[in-house]
Amino acid sequence: MLTLYGAPASRAHRVMWMLKELEVPFRHEPTDFLHGGTRSAEFLRINPNGRVPVLVDDGRAIFESLAINLYLARKFGGTLAPADLWEEGQATQWSFWAVTEVEKPLLLAACNRFLFAEADRDPAEFQQMIARLDRPFRVLEAHLAQRSHVLGDRFTVADLNIAALMSLVPLAGIGIGDYPHMEAWLESCLERPAAADWKPIRFTVPRPPAERMLASFV
Amino acid sequence: MLTLYGAPASRAHRVMWMLKELEVPFRHEPTDFLHGGTRSAEFLRINPNGRVPVLVDDGRAIFESLAINLYLARKFGGTLAPADLWEEGQATQWSFWAVTEVEKPLLLAACNRFLFAEADRDPAEFQQMIARLDRPFRVLEAHLAQRSHVLGDRFTVADLNIAALMSLVPLAGIGIGDYPHMEAWLESCLERPAAADWKPIRFTVPRPPAERMLASFV
Repeated sequence: MLTLYGAPASRAHRVMWMLKELEVPFRHEPTDFLHGGTRSAEFLRINPNGRVPVLVDDGRAIFESLAINLYLARKFGGTLAPADLWEEGQATQWSFWAVTEVEKPLLLAACNRFLFAEADRDPAEFQQMIARLDRPFRVLEAHLAQRSHVLGDRFTVADLNIAALMSLVPLAGIGIGDYPHMEAWLESCLERPAAADWKPIRFTVPRPPAERMLASFV
Repeated sequence: MLTLYGAPASRAHRVMWMLKELEVPFRHEPTDFLHGGTRSAEFLRINPNGRVPVLVDDGRAIFESLAINLYLARKFGGTLAPADLWEEGQATQWSFWAVTEVEKPLLLAACNRFLFAEADRDPAEFQQMIARLDRPFRVLEAHLAQRSHVLGDRFTVADLNIAALMSLVPLAGIGIGDYPHMEAWLESCLERPAAADWKPIRFTVPRPPAERMLASFV
């Protein structure tokens, strides 16, 4: 029995997408991180980090969205799973890459487009983050110029983990026409029926005070 | 044949530690990221991200230090490797956790203790980062209060991946006496003979100009 904790408008949508691709039944607890749901004593017993998503599989908890998806790929197999040791290494590598190279600058870019209240958005900060993203986006563009998907010729957990994180690109209206292979790949991933939960994501977060801005994003 | 690119005073030390634990022979190219070695055309053909470490295994490259170590654990097995699907998921989860919860605030704390030139260090920024680290450190402390190692009762790639990243704690002279189980565990990991390459790490990086500080650390 699988239980997924986390509202669709959170990193939990990454795992919802994976579970729907795998057609695995699951119970959903849409714990809301914006209103204290992840800091209750009850929730902290499930994930002491106070974060969603968490997946509970037969009473045992696993956290970190991309690690959950790699676990689900291994457990349920099929074409989404890495086929061998090398593909497993590549899927893990690209999942870390998405977090270390893309996630934070993309999130801060998105904050300055739609997650911060309008008066708190800073176009210069947005442009700084877009400039930061050019190198990783060029890396992915060159990779996808050689193959249709991240691991080769089929959609796998590696595509899902990167594309789910990059759903902020269309949500924030960020133009990626300079990276045509990546753009076509991202659209094809995000249009998969199982992915649809990212589309209605709408919420705002407060901009941290200037003196805590760095501390909030490192 | 394995070739590891990256100077010991870089994230490559994480992979050197793993290779030495596994007693796997490897060729070492100590590509220096501080003096342009990772931005040469030759190096960018190996890793277009322009980062160390990269491991080349029989002509195929894998990057992202913690992903490389998980790959090596799977490939060479033994007691360092996850024993089953659940342990594999937990090792991956904790490796992501180290990157998402610990790495950036710890790095910026370390910058303000020894990586920035003395005149560029900011004690208030150091304290902000130490405050940021309290939650993940409490999570790891509670986890290690229940078991001697991250996956249970033996040293594995999960311990290595977290501890290698946390070698910045002793390097920066950060006191972790408030987390006694974590402190004892970290010392036992970092004192393993295969880990010794972290000890002589000494270099400085320039503090980015104030207006680029956030962009440099997200």
